Amino acid sequence: MSSGWFRRRFLPGGPLPAPRSPRSPRPRASPVPYRRPRFLRGSGSCSGTADAPRRPDARPVRCPARGRVLPWNAGYAEIINAEKSEFNEDQAACGKLCIRRCEFGAEEDQEWLTVCPEELLTGHYWALFDGHGGPAAAILAANTLHSCLRRQLETIVEGMVATQPPMHLSGHCVCPSDPQFVEEKGIRTEDLVIGALESAFQECDEMIGRELEASGQVGGCTALVAVSLQGKLYVANAGDSRAILVRRDEVRPLSSEFTPETERQRIQQLAFVYPELLAGEFTRLEFPRRLKGDDLGQKVLFRDHHMSGWSYKCVEKSDLKYPLIHGQGRQARLLGTLAVSRGLGDHQLRVLDTNIQLKPFLLSVPQVTVLDVDQLELQEEDVVVMATDGLWDVLSNEQVARLVRSFLSGNQEDPHRVHQQDGPHRFSELAQMLIHSTQGKDDGPTGEGQVSYDDVSVFVIPLHSQGQGSSGH
Amino acid sequence: MSSGWFRRRFLPGGPLPAPRSPRSPRPRASPVPYRRPRFLRGSGSCSGTADAPRRPDARPVRCPARGRVLPWNAGYAEIINAEKSEFNEDQAACGKLCIRRCEFGAEEDQEWLTVCPEELLTGHYWALFDGHGGPAAAILAANTLHSCLRRQLETIVEGMVATQPPMHLSGHCVCPSDPQFVEEKGIRTEDLVIGALESAFQECDEMIGRELEASGQVGGCTALVAVSLQGKLYVANAGDSRAILVRRDEVRPLSSEFTPETERQRIQQLAFVYPELLAGEFTRLEFPRRLKGDDLGQKVLFRDHHMSGWSYKCVEKSDLKYPLIHGQGRQARLLGTLAVSRGLGDHQLRVLDTNIQLKPFLLSVPQVTVLDVDQLELQEEDVVVMATDGLWDVLSNEQVARLVRSFLSGNQEDPHRVHQQDGPHRFSELAQMLIHSTQGKDDGPTGEGQVSYDDVSVFVIPLHSQGQGSSGH
Repeated sequence: MSSGWFRRRFLPGGPLPAPRSPRSPRPRASPVPYRRPRFLRGSGSCSGTADAPRRPDARPVRCPARGRVLPWNAGYAEIINAEKSEFNEDQAACGKLCIRRCEFGAEEDQEWLTVCPEELLTGHYWALFDGHGGPAAAILAANTLHSCLRRQLETIVEGMVATQPPMHLSGHCVCPSDPQFVEEKGIRTEDLVIGALESAFQECDEMIGRELEASGQVGGCTALVAVSLQGKLYVANAGDSRAILVRRDEVRPLSSEFTPETERQRIQQLAFVYPELLAGEFTRLEFPRRLKGDDLGQKVLFRDHHMSGWSYKCVEKSDLKYPLIHGQGRQARLLGTLAVSRGLGDHQLRVLDTNIQLKPFLLSVPQVTVLDVDQLELQEEDVVVMATDGLWDVLSNEQVARLVRSFLSGNQEDPHRVHQQDGPHRFSELAQMLIHSTQGKDDGPTGEGQVSYDDVSVFVIPLHSQGQGSSGH
Repeated sequence: MSSGWFRRRFLPGGPLPAPRSPRSPRPRASPVPYRRPRFLRGSGSCSGTADAPRRPDARPVRCPARGRVLPWNAGYAEIINAEKSEFNEDQAACGKLCIRRCEFGAEEDQEWLTVCPEELLTGHYWALFDGHGGPAAAILAANTLHSCLRRQLETIVEGMVATQPPMHLSGHCVCPSDPQFVEEKGIRTEDLVIGALESAFQECDEMIGRELEASGQVGGCTALVAVSLQGKLYVANAGDSRAILVRRDEVRPLSSEFTPETERQRIQQLAFVYPELLAGEFTRLEFPRRLKGDDLGQKVLFRDHHMSGWSYKCVEKSDLKYPLIHGQGRQARLLGTLAVSRGLGDHQLRVLDTNIQLKPFLLSVPQVTVLDVDQLELQEEDVVVMATDGLWDVLSNEQVARLVRSFLSGNQEDPHRVHQQDGPHRFSELAQMLIHSTQGKDDGPTGEGQVSYDDVSVFVIPLHSQGQGSSGH
C-alpha cells in the first residue's frame, strides 16, 4: 500500500462540483449536473469536527434540486476515484440533518416556521447509491434523497418530539382514549422515522422518474441510507448494498439484500396476478436451468409463487420460454436484465428489443432496520460499515469484521489530534483500507487477494458519539 | 388435579368413529362423518410401541375420504373432551406415514407399484386443526390431510431417496450438467418435502371446499402439522397454532402465527390490487382506531400496504369506512369476521349481511420450518410442543418450557415400563398437564392461574428416537 497509490486514487474533495480531469467529457445535453465520477467516502460525524459538513443544511429544501449540485454533502469527506470508469455509477452523500418544526394549517400551502433553534432535531445522514445504466439516477439520488427525507421528517417532527406519537398531529385528541389506541397498536417514535424513510425513498423515486424523462436519460440505482437520530441508527436499504455492525464480540447485519432471488416470490406473485406484464415472452416459473425441447413431457423440478419448497411438474411448451428470473447468485437477472429488485429510477427500462417494462417488478420502498444505539454499551471501536456490493462480493461480513478489528486495534485514536488538517481520521483510513483490500493491489491483511471488478464504496461510521442522545434535539 | 377430573375429561380412544354421548346429536344431513367433538392428544411415536398406530396406513389413499372415517389416527392416543362443547372445533390426527415408491409412466393414469418393502420411506405425522364456524372443516382436514401429504410425497419419493433431488424425476438427465444446476440452486431433499407439504395443504383445502359445498356446510380451520422424516422434523403452519422446541437450555419457536395483524401488508396489498374485493364497504388503510366524523380533515396516524412504519394523513370521507383489519392482538379481525389469515376451508364465508368473501384474503399454503433432528445432540427430555392458540393465549413459550422441564425432571422414564397398558406415558401426562394448567382448576405449577376459555389441544413429541435416522427408510 504505497502512498503514491493513494494519491492517485483518493482525491481530496472540495465544494462540488468536483474538479474534472481533462479526459472526462461532459455528457451530451444532460440536465443532470455532471460531477466527476467518484467514490465518496467519509466517516461519521463523531470524529470531532473533522467530518462535520462545512455548511449544515439549515433550511428546508422545498423542491428537488434541478440542474444544480447541492453543496450539502461537500466538506472534508474525501472523494475516491478508483480509476475504473470516468462515468462512475457509485455515488454517495453524507452530512448533518437539521429538522425544523413546522406548523400545520388548514391550507395545502403551509408556512414553514422556525419556532426557535432549540426546537430543532438534528441527526446525521449517510447514503450510498450504486447506479446501473449510467450514473444519472445515482447522481440525482445523491443530490436529493436527503432533501426528501428532511421534508418528510419535518411533516412529522411534532409527533417525533412527543413521548409517544399522538394520533392527531395537531395534538388535539378527538376521543379521550386516543393515546390508548396508539399505545395498544404499539406505535413508537421510531415507526414515524421508518415511515418517513419509506416515503422519502418513494418521493425521490418519483422525482428521478420525472427528471430522467424530461432529460431523455435512463438509469437506476440502489440506495442504502443510514440516519442517526434521537439515539437510534436507522438503516434503510433498497438494493444489494449492505450495512453491518461490527463490535468487539459481535457482527450483526443491519440490512438485507433485495435481488431477483431474494424477492422471487413477490416477483412471481406479481406475474401471476398480471400475466400481461410478461407479454407472453417469459415464464414466471423457476426451474434449475432454462428448459429446452428435450425436456418437453419430462417431470422437472420447479417452483411457483406460492412455494418455498420445490416440486416436479410435467414440462409443457410454455415452460420453454425464458424465465422471469434466471441465473444464480451474482448472475441472477430479473427479466434477463437487472440484478436488483429494489432501488430508485429505471422508469424507462425495458427488456432489450421488447416493450416489456422492468419497473412494475421493482420496489422503491426500502426495508428499514433500527439499531438502538443508546441501549448498546458502546466501545470506542464499535462501527457500522456500509458498502456497495463490490465489497461484499469479495469479503464476507466476518472477513470485514476481522479487518476492522485488526485495523482499529493497530491504529489507536491520537488524543492530540483535533482537526482534519492533522491528516485523515483513522476511520477514514479504515474505509480506504477496506476498498484497497478489494483491489487486488496486494494481498491485504486477509491474505486472500480477492479482486472486485465492480465499483466499491464504503462508509465507516463510528458509533461511540452517536449514542448517548448526542444526535437528539 | 384430581383423577376424577381426568376421568371426566379424558376418554380413552378406540377405532374411530369415537363413541358418542347420548346428548350429541348427529348433524342434519351431513355427508361429513360425525365424530364426537374431541380433543385428541397423543405423544410421539418414539415412546416405544405405546403410541404406534394400531394399523399403519400401508396403502396409498388415492382419493380423499368421502363419507368414511379413516381408522388411520386411531390407536392408543387418548381422546380429550374438555366438556366445553359437544361440537368441539379442535380436531387432531397422528400416526405413521408409509410412503411407497411409485414408477412414473408416460400416461396420466400411472400405476402405483410397491417395489419392495425396504424401499419404503416411513415417517410420523401429527396434526392439530382449530376450526371456526363449526367443526366440519377441521374434521375433514383431520381425516384427509395426511392422505394428501402421503400422495404428494409418493409422487416425489424417487427424488427424496437420492442424495440430491434429480432435475428430472425419471433420473434421465437431458443435459450432462443437470446435477450441477440443481447444486447451484442449492436444492435439497428437504425442499421436496417442503414443496409436498405446501401442495398437500392446497389439495386438502380444495377438497374441503368441494365437500362443504356439496353438503351445504360451512366452516374453516387452522392447520399445524409436524412430520418426522429422514432425520428431520418438518413443521407446517397455516393459522395461529404454534409449535416450539423445548430443550434443557433452549426454547426455539418452530412456527410463526398467521393472523390479520401479522399478514397486514399482504392483505392490504391484495385490496390495493383488487379494490373490488372490498365492495366499497371497507377501507384498506390501518388507523389506530376506527375513524369517525370528528376526525375528518385532521391529520391522523395511518399505514398502507407498502409501509412498515407509520405516517400521518389528512382524513377523507372514505377513511371513515370500516377497516379491512380492525382491532389489536386477540381482537384483530379480517373484514370484521376472522381472527386468522391462513387455514383450510372458508370457501363460503362472507361478511355478515354482505356478499364480500373472505377467501380471497386467506392463504391455504403453510409456512414450513425444518428442524434437523440428526444434527441436534439430543437429550432424553428434548420435546416439541404443538398446541392450538388456547394454550398460547395464557402461557408464553418460556412458561410452557418451564412446565415441561419441571414435569419431566419430576417424572423420569420407568425402565420397566414397556406397554401402553402399564399406564399413560409420561409425555402423554405432560400434554394433559399442559392442558390442565390452562383450565383454571387449580393454580398449576406456574401458580398464575390463567384461564383459557378457548379450546386447547396439545401434542408433546419426544425427539430422542426421532433422530438418528430412526424415521428414515
